[in-house]
Amino acid sequence: MSLLVVGSVAFDDITTPLGRAPRVLGGSGTYFALAASFFTAVRVVGVVGEDFSAADEAVFGNRGIDVRGLERAAGKSFFWAGEYEANPNIRHTRKTELNVFEHFAPKLPAEYLDSEYLFLGNIAPALQCQVRDQMGPRVKLVGGDTMNFWITGQPEEVKRFLSRLHVLTINDSEAHLLTGEHNLHRAARAILEQGPGAVVIKRGEHGATLYSHSQYFGVPGYPLEDVVDPTGAGDAFAGGMIGYLARQGAWDDMTLRRAVVYGSVMGSFACEQFGVGRLTELTPTEVEARYQEFVALSRFEA
Amino acid sequence: MSLLVVGSVAFDDITTPLGRAPRVLGGSGTYFALAASFFTAVRVVGVVGEDFSAADEAVFGNRGIDVRGLERAAGKSFFWAGEYEANPNIRHTRKTELNVFEHFAPKLPAEYLDSEYLFLGNIAPALQCQVRDQMGPRVKLVGGDTMNFWITGQPEEVKRFLSRLHVLTINDSEAHLLTGEHNLHRAARAILEQGPGAVVIKRGEHGATLYSHSQYFGVPGYPLEDVVDPTGAGDAFAGGMIGYLARQGAWDDMTLRRAVVYGSVMGSFACEQFGVGRLTELTPTEVEARYQEFVALSRFEA
Repeated sequence: MSLLVVGSVAFDDITTPLGRAPRVLGGSGTYFALAASFFTAVRVVGVVGEDFSAADEAVFGNRGIDVRGLERAAGKSFFWAGEYEANPNIRHTRKTELNVFEHFAPKLPAEYLDSEYLFLGNIAPALQCQVRDQMGPRVKLVGGDTMNFWITGQPEEVKRFLSRLHVLTINDSEAHLLTGEHNLHRAARAILEQGPGAVVIKRGEHGATLYSHSQYFGVPGYPLEDVVDPTGAGDAFAGGMIGYLARQGAWDDMTLRRAVVYGSVMGSFACEQFGVGRLTELTPTEVEARYQEFVALSRFEA
Repeated sequence: MSLLVVGSVAFDDITTPLGRAPRVLGGSGTYFALAASFFTAVRVVGVVGEDFSAADEAVFGNRGIDVRGLERAAGKSFFWAGEYEANPNIRHTRKTELNVFEHFAPKLPAEYLDSEYLFLGNIAPALQCQVRDQMGPRVKLVGGDTMNFWITGQPEEVKRFLSRLHVLTINDSEAHLLTGEHNLHRAARAILEQGPGAVVIKRGEHGATLYSHSQYFGVPGYPLEDVVDPTGAGDAFAGGMIGYLARQGAWDDMTLRRAVVYGSVMGSFACEQFGVGRLTELTPTEVEARYQEFVALSRFEA
């Protein structure tokens, strides 16, 4: 089933202990869409500037991603420069240029309005709600993501956004910030009380945990010895997870668990090369093989 | 089969956000022995002072733990006072009085020499090696633990200790300190190269991971919403793990995985009350029920 994602499409200048990529395609919408495209038909809503080239567009086209909702605006695309420490959880932003993203008002092409799955990527919560409104009742499942910047700066809008979600994906430090709870299990419960039927806490190298009113599930991290570039891993996680749910057309307890594992699969691939490099060359066979690795690494009863 | 543990037996003054226990029985040997006693016959080697009462001894006796190797020395028992922040990974030591522990030289009763399983709890690495020497070739499996204090202060002795172990249990920050590796998978590989056939990295609320030359395995954390007192959780983990191995008399890949899960079971119980409170009132039925909870919370394929 069709999955619509709204998010950023950007260029990044990334430095990690393993090297530097001075200008690569990035953005939450990009990572999400590429990861989700291994599971279902994906449509993107976002904005890019005049520096977005045919080669950049081909990154989406090669994965069959529909970019009719990708607005072209005068000016430059969103640009982010950052550097990661040896501990990849610590990153320093060197530069943020919003550019065309500053006045982004998501517009949905008429052809997108029949999408049954929706992911509200990490943009201003008021815009996330606007997109939700435009989509109407045809949408079966709404997933979303947010970040420290919005949690701190626009708490009321974030609350309204949460009340309209089925599934929230969030990382551990954001979950703490959002709820004031140090204990992540308590944090997840507090978030469930604000609306989402399911919360997934992304714990980086420690794996991920899923919470709903009916279950708790955890999956360990994939044993990645070289984290070449952690940028976008959380977005790729969300793409794998919601993409899988869209493909299955269900979200019962066991399907949600497998979706979290497919999220972990896509998040782990995203870290293996700079930018979206690994996601663009990946094959469905590799995705399935890594899923089976997760089965093997977490099994202890026959 | 008989499991011998050498470690500290102490009194603790513990403050956490949930309260304070001004003087409770503690020490790595105590937590380990209590946890292991749910799986196998346990013998303790350690030293206590004149303040160790009949009631304290009964804590061991009630679990059938053999304390003939617990030396009584003139003076006071090892005493530690500390305080945990809301994030239980951050603790501040307020006082450490070594007392009788300062000149501790482990002596093994003749009746202990037929022990087939040995755990070298967190004491000076030279003493750990001494105990290993005294035990001779009858020992089938040697587990051990260490901590920042020894890793930093006596790196050569720690190296010698590592070379004589079958299984090392260690927490994430210690694994980093021991190897200089931020990536825990690399850290585990580096430790395996120093001798142990298996390394378990305890990740606190994030669960635990097992590494050997033939496998990687991870188990998520138990969803404990109230960490009343994290003291001794790592020792209880080790006790559950090595105790289970001793009971099974095997350490093939799948048995090792289950041992890590039983370790997680015992570590989670340890956090539920101050000191060893929870471990002293626990029943085998509760242990088995929590193991089944781990089966349920980590399963995603039928």
